[in-house]
Amino acid sequence: MITIDYLDSLFCKTPAEGRMLAFTMARKTIAAIQSDPEVRKELRPHYAKDTAQLIASSQVVAIEFQTIAMANNYWRDEK
Amino acid sequence: MITIDYLDSLFCKTPAEGRMLAFTMARKTIAAIQSDPEVRKELRPHYAKDTAQLIASSQVVAIEFQTIAMANNYWRDEK
Amino acid sequence: MITIDYLDSLFCKTPAEGRMLAFTMARKTIAAIQSDPEVRKELRPHYAKDTAQLIASSQVVAIEFQTIAMANNYWRDEK
Amino acid sequence: MITIDYLDSLFCKTPAEGRMLAFTMARKTIAAIQSDPEVRKELRPHYAKDTAQLIASSQVVAIEFQTIAMANNYWRDEK
Amino acid sequence: MITIDYLDSLFCKTPAEGRMLAFTMARKTIAAIQSDPEVRKELRPHYAKDTAQLIASSQVVAIEFQTIAMANNYWRDEK
Amino acid sequence: MITIDYLDSLFCKTPAEGRMLAFTMARKTIAAIQSDPEVRKELRPHYAKDTAQLIASSQVVAIEFQTIAMANNYWRDEK
Repeated sequence: MITIDYLDSLFCKTPAEGRMLAFTMARKTIAAIQSDPEVRKELRPHYAKDTAQLIASSQVVAIEFQTIAMANNYWRDEK
Repeated sequence: MITIDYLDSLFCKTPAEGRMLAFTMARKTIAAIQSDPEVRKELRPHYAKDTAQLIASSQVVAIEFQTIAMANNYWRDEK
Repeated sequence: MITIDYLDSLFCKTPAEGRMLAFTMARKTIAAIQSDPEVRKELRPHYAKDTAQLIASSQVVAIEFQTIAMANNYWRDEK
Repeated sequence: MITIDYLDSLFCKTPAEGRMLAFTMARKTIAAIQSDPEVRKELRPHYAKDTAQLIASSQVVAIEFQTIAMANNYWRDEK
Repeated sequence: MITIDYLDSLFCKTPAEGRMLAFTMARKTIAAIQSDPEVRKELRPHYAKDTAQLIASSQVVAIEFQTIAMANNYWRDEK
Repeated sequence: MITIDYLDSLFCKTPAEGRMLAFTMARKTIAAIQSDPEVRKELRPHYAKDTAQLIASSQVVAIEFQTIAMANNYWRDEK
């Protein structure tokens, strides 16, 4: 069973805050699929030194951020 | 023959509920392509310990969620 | 020469029907590129037991579905 | 030097015609990058029997089609 | 330091011109990350004969083109 | 803990400036996941000579740029 406790809202005050949420969403999704924290700890060194996986991770963050930016109307009202 | 019994609607009360649906859609798609539950059970340990596949899975969830978030107008009315 | 006989319209009565179309589109695209049904039959066991390929397939379904959901205005009128 | 002789317009009468254009765009892009037809002929058997590459190809078609479908307003006026 | 000298505007007179810009953007991004022209020359034969990489390249062109097509409102005014 | 100090705003005066921001976002995401600058320095030669990874990197830049271009309404007002 997956619990989503990090997504009360897609609205963020600033682009930087929105970017933080994108990181959180990407990270929590991995944690939901591989729910054992011990296993995740073991896995981390592998991908953090594998550039292909770092690039793939950054793509996930880019996609999540696109959704968040749309939701916040690109923070146009802050302009 | 594929049966879709998890998608009566794209509308979800909250972003967290929307995220749950994204997970369900991603998981059920795999199950539709590899319909043998025994085979899926055997396969699971492989990808749950392979960071490249965990990242790829999280990308699928991100894309499904983008669609769901659009459908729900990013839960703007909840703001 | 490719024949497209499964795409009279992008309009679907329900999200579930839209999801079915996404599966069809993904499957028929493969069949158009590898048009020999005998070869496809041989290939199927390979990818159906390869989790990386199952995940990649589910991403294609997610993208096709996003297009279909947009076309149907996310079935908002059904709400 | 790349010549684009297949893209006078993104407008297509039907979704099926739009799908055909998506295939053309995907195929012509490959041909533009690997412009030697002899090399392409040699390469084709490799990817047409490699399911991972068939899936990757179908994803490119899905993305091109999404653009074409948007351009044609999802053929809503045909409804 | 990256110099962007190919992107004065996203506006293009025709879809074909837009497609050309998509190729340029994809190519120039690679050149910005691997800025040594000698190294790029050495690398080119590798990916131009690797179908998986040709497909991946064509996906980047498809994504860049989607942005350009949106910017040009799909060249609807040319219809 | 991730610090986002490069994203005060998604608004950029020109497409070229927007492209620069897309590069920055892609690069900073990698740096946030692999936060050790020494490790990143060691990793760089690997991916900068691996065409598959150069292509994957350019895809991330393309996705980030799509978001930035949307935010800036494709710099239409500059036309």
